[in-house]
Amino acid sequence: MTDRLILHEDARSGNCYKIRLTAALLGLRLERRNYDIMRGETRTPAFRAGVNANGCIPVLEIGNRLLPESNAACWYLAEGSALIPADRFERADMLRWMFFEQYSHEPNIATLRFWLAFVGEANLSEYQRAQILPKRMAGEDALRLMNEHLATRDWFVGGAITLADIALYAYTHVAEAGAFRLDDYAHVCRWLDRVARLRSYVPMTA
Amino acid sequence: MTDRLILHEDARSGNCYKIRLTAALLGLRLERRNYDIMRGETRTPAFRAGVNANGCIPVLEIGNRLLPESNAACWYLAEGSALIPADRFERADMLRWMFFEQYSHEPNIATLRFWLAFVGEANLSEYQRAQILPKRMAGEDALRLMNEHLATRDWFVGGAITLADIALYAYTHVAEAGAFRLDDYAHVCRWLDRVARLRSYVPMTA
Repeated sequence: MTDRLILHEDARSGNCYKIRLTAALLGLRLERRNYDIMRGETRTPAFRAGVNANGCIPVLEIGNRLLPESNAACWYLAEGSALIPADRFERADMLRWMFFEQYSHEPNIATLRFWLAFVGEANLSEYQRAQILPKRMAGEDALRLMNEHLATRDWFVGGAITLADIALYAYTHVAEAGAFRLDDYAHVCRWLDRVARLRSYVPMTA
Repeated sequence: MTDRLILHEDARSGNCYKIRLTAALLGLRLERRNYDIMRGETRTPAFRAGVNANGCIPVLEIGNRLLPESNAACWYLAEGSALIPADRFERADMLRWMFFEQYSHEPNIATLRFWLAFVGEANLSEYQRAQILPKRMAGEDALRLMNEHLATRDWFVGGAITLADIALYAYTHVAEAGAFRLDDYAHVCRWLDRVARLRSYVPMTA
């Protein structure tokens, strides 16, 4: 990879951490630009015009091109490496778990962490408060599905870590900040340990 | 592709249609098994045990293997074809729009279509009713972003149709069933026409 890589991020975001963890496991160097999402720094006209019209982080800057969406950025970095399976079905199955993560996991588990640990329950709108229970139930469904899947295997796809594990690890390992009880999911806990013991692993706080 | 391909679907679902449209553009034959989601036919113990523990369609059956998640199934079918760009950045950028579709588009635009055109507004729960306005606003944001992107290009990524267009087309072209006004998005309308004029195009109702 010869292009300069710059990650536009808020370091507390699990979506941003996915990209840092992928880069670390691949031995790639990322420059980092931090934005405080609590202060709306990704919603400014300058950010929308220069980085992402969507007002969201992360965005991976690759040379002079910009790539939003965490899982797409992980894919870009990992192409050609062992983090993407060589088998056609397994490659699609890895994407299956990454779409599951963005559709069924992140909107529940990441959002409750954000609301409870960053915004604070007392500061939530009535509308947000009404979503806590449905998001809790949907988040538990996602953890239960992961736990059942991991009952018979060490990694989500095939016999080694792939981007599916990285995508799902990011918000699962901090799910307790959203008041999920990980102890209820023994296979998930063992898998979390497996990821954290990888050589070249970096924690979210690094 | 030598494996037998069976699509487990509800034909009214845009997520299922994506896979049929991809197969049609590639000239691939799919067998189809229909389930009525309005009658809970994907939530039965038999469906969960035999097709998808998640209780969701679509699932693409490939030989004796099962692949949930619409965009992963499209990827599987299209690998090695012109529907996935050959350039590394463009391939990741295509995935970026497919993740955008599942995160920022489908939960708003598809859900409002489902609630208003299938469930019926009178039958919505109070909790669902409270989500109509936020989903309307987020759906309009998604359409606006698409419209701005399409102001200067014919297709979402590169110079020809890719899976990004197919993924976004599925629920955009029926967004009016969710009370979105597509006439407000002229570039989107021209792009919808472009897709519908493709040789080998099949409509959602086919």
